[in-house]
Amino acid sequence: MQKDLKAFFEPEGVAIVGASREPNKIGYCIFKNFVDNFKGPVYPVNPNAAVILKKICYPDVTEIPKPVDLAVLAIPAKQIPKVMEDCVKKKVKGVIIISAGFSEIGSRDLEEKILHIAKKGEIRIIGPNCLGVYDTFSKVDTLFLPATKLGRPKAGGISFISQSGAVGSVVLDYLATEGLGISKFISYGNAIDANEIDLLEYLNEDDSTKVICFYLEGTKDGRRMMEAARKIVKKKPILVLKGGRTKEGTHAVHSHTGSLAGDDAIYETAFKQSGMLRIENLMDMFTFADALATQPIPEGDRVQIVTNGGGFGVLATDAVVKEGLSLAQMSEKSKKKIKGVVPQYAIIGNPLDLIGDADMKRYEAALEALGNDSNVDAILCILLFQTVSLQPEVVRVVRGFASKNLKPMVVCSGGGEYAQKLMKELKEGSVPVFDSPDVAAKALKCLVDYSRIKKS
Amino acid sequence: MQKDLKAFFEPEGVAIVGASREPNKIGYCIFKNFVDNFKGPVYPVNPNAAVILKKICYPDVTEIPKPVDLAVLAIPAKQIPKVMEDCVKKKVKGVIIISAGFSEIGSRDLEEKILHIAKKGEIRIIGPNCLGVYDTFSKVDTLFLPATKLGRPKAGGISFISQSGAVGSVVLDYLATEGLGISKFISYGNAIDANEIDLLEYLNEDDSTKVICFYLEGTKDGRRMMEAARKIVKKKPILVLKGGRTKEGTHAVHSHTGSLAGDDAIYETAFKQSGMLRIENLMDMFTFADALATQPIPEGDRVQIVTNGGGFGVLATDAVVKEGLSLAQMSEKSKKKIKGVVPQYAIIGNPLDLIGDADMKRYEAALEALGNDSNVDAILCILLFQTVSLQPEVVRVVRGFASKNLKPMVVCSGGGEYAQKLMKELKEGSVPVFDSPDVAAKALKCLVDYSRIKKS
Repeated sequence: MQKDLKAFFEPEGVAIVGASREPNKIGYCIFKNFVDNFKGPVYPVNPNAAVILKKICYPDVTEIPKPVDLAVLAIPAKQIPKVMEDCVKKKVKGVIIISAGFSEIGSRDLEEKILHIAKKGEIRIIGPNCLGVYDTFSKVDTLFLPATKLGRPKAGGISFISQSGAVGSVVLDYLATEGLGISKFISYGNAIDANEIDLLEYLNEDDSTKVICFYLEGTKDGRRMMEAARKIVKKKPILVLKGGRTKEGTHAVHSHTGSLAGDDAIYETAFKQSGMLRIENLMDMFTFADALATQPIPEGDRVQIVTNGGGFGVLATDAVVKEGLSLAQMSEKSKKKIKGVVPQYAIIGNPLDLIGDADMKRYEAALEALGNDSNVDAILCILLFQTVSLQPEVVRVVRGFASKNLKPMVVCSGGGEYAQKLMKELKEGSVPVFDSPDVAAKALKCLVDYSRIKKS
Repeated sequence: MQKDLKAFFEPEGVAIVGASREPNKIGYCIFKNFVDNFKGPVYPVNPNAAVILKKICYPDVTEIPKPVDLAVLAIPAKQIPKVMEDCVKKKVKGVIIISAGFSEIGSRDLEEKILHIAKKGEIRIIGPNCLGVYDTFSKVDTLFLPATKLGRPKAGGISFISQSGAVGSVVLDYLATEGLGISKFISYGNAIDANEIDLLEYLNEDDSTKVICFYLEGTKDGRRMMEAARKIVKKKPILVLKGGRTKEGTHAVHSHTGSLAGDDAIYETAFKQSGMLRIENLMDMFTFADALATQPIPEGDRVQIVTNGGGFGVLATDAVVKEGLSLAQMSEKSKKKIKGVVPQYAIIGNPLDLIGDADMKRYEAALEALGNDSNVDAILCILLFQTVSLQPEVVRVVRGFASKNLKPMVVCSGGGEYAQKLMKELKEGSVPVFDSPDVAAKALKCLVDYSRIKKS
């Protein structure tokens, strides 16, 4: 069986089997995604239609006159073996089976039958019972919900493998609104062929993937997963959220995907030993991944806090210490530089409190000094935009500092419309922003942990 | 000294000392807030102006021909003793001193002097070095930032006492955007007279305050705080976020407000023994407070999860168990009712998985059954709006259920623009919404904890 999964992400030609003219049908939505966005040729397959969206429709895959690398199947389960045989004849390399109605409702035989045909024809399968693939570069997009209901994130460095379609779709929608960029999304469903480990290995070789996020309920081959992960994390971080941590959650997993979630202690050990970063909160997984994708790796764990609000400085200090990170002690040289710019009542320590009347100039001087201070490994920069004196142009200063890549930095900021707008501008400039000091500190912990994993 | 703090929140007449004609000045912003919104008479005081915002300006407080309950002082620190003497003559009941330049920069003598005058005249003081008061009912609003930079939350049941002005202002701004309602906000600064305990006691008697949120860095009288809290929590919950948990944070507190943050273990014990709910995350404090303000108190800790996404059901199960809550076992009667409405492949357990093709009717039937099920104490309802079959009108169903007040409920939902709009509609209908299952479970834990405190 062909090892390479490239046909799923960079196919030369794509057939949409079950393409439909009716806008409410899944086969319409998927076909339209390809017609609107996919860069290569796409062919509708439907024996009951002649033309769909101005494209000539074929009765079956073998009738398509040009090469087809990828077939996307959105047809009733029992019709799939016949279509698979056609795909073998057509020398299709990859098939994504969106359709449900397989082992998740007890039809394991049908899965076996399909797999048997695929092996014969050296076809790789993603699915069945899945959302399939969304690739922001090639524009392969098998998500069967229109962009009005489910946003599509922009191109970026995060790839996301999800055992759950619902988790995947909600996250994509969230990322689109947050302005976070992804490379590839794969919902692999029942995984009768390509499974989470194959996908991890593929993403390891994929240059546009900088960070891998992974929602997992259970794996059939823990040892192979660990071996794969151990290799990958030397090149790029893997963040994992495991559904079924508790006994009761494990039970729920069994009802959901039929996976054996297994004892959480075993997974915990496996994640630790193979260097995967375990995350607790679903949305945090992606904001932390964004920090990993955009920021340089810290040399150590010494964090310098910069603030224009004393209370936030206090909360950030607690959070940094609680995460087991160290408070940096800036050099005398940095202190001297900063003293030259801030008023006497500023507190030059850690937190570095630039005081409520701070303007962008104070931030500029502080960041410049800290960026070149070898006593500082990372910066937690608090920006309270609501004060009288802080100009909105401070965003330019902070983005400018981030673009120099001198030290990893996360920003903590919060508030309403005015602040949200500026926070968004920071995010667009590859500056990770968190609205609570404790989450900002957790993101830094993630960076420090990955730095240790990479070095070890 | 007068015990009652009513003059700060429901004054008959208000003098703004330091009112200014220049829009960039603090004295302009505060005066304008009152002119635009305050329901009673307001008088500008400034010896260098005749008229401000079409109101006759007085050279000093004693010249105002009508009664003045409250004076707001936004003038240089050293001018304040003289103004305090005027306030005594005028029989002012409360003074809010916004100005900084006191003990926080070493001028303790000036504070003593002012306090001496206040005692003589039975005047209560909030401040100095504070943001003062924002009352959504009376429209007392001493926040010196215009609404364009700092949003003002609508009226609601949460009151918020903050030792830090910056923490307070960012939170208010956030609440305004989130659509959460507050009753009173008080930033008390150096607290030379009215302190956190006086304010807690006042809020206990305030009918419009349903839940108290409290950002604290340190108290001078732990015993009295505990005594006050113990009484209050029988009537309404207190959520507390303590700045200075760690040794390093305590050090930062000392630089910030000069408070003695003290050993965290002592505070931890004090909060537990007096029934205050300790919160870790700043923004969570307010979303949890909203859940407490809008939801009935649960009878026990048995949580029923309802979902249209299996993966979210798994994550919610893990989260509920991790918080130490129980999974409810719905009655046979409920099972039967739900079975009559859902297809055979739905999973009638806990989680109750209505499956990805669920429509609003399934939610309606499930909530109706669970709302009347004595085996269920609280509901964690997951709504993935992105699916093909779930109509946006499900919002009406969920709001309708919430308005019956049968059981406490929190919703977990997430995503982009489309989902966010519906989530907002839920919030506006007094349904607490969280974007991650683990935070939704934490909110329920907070409700269950308060139920125990209230009963104990």
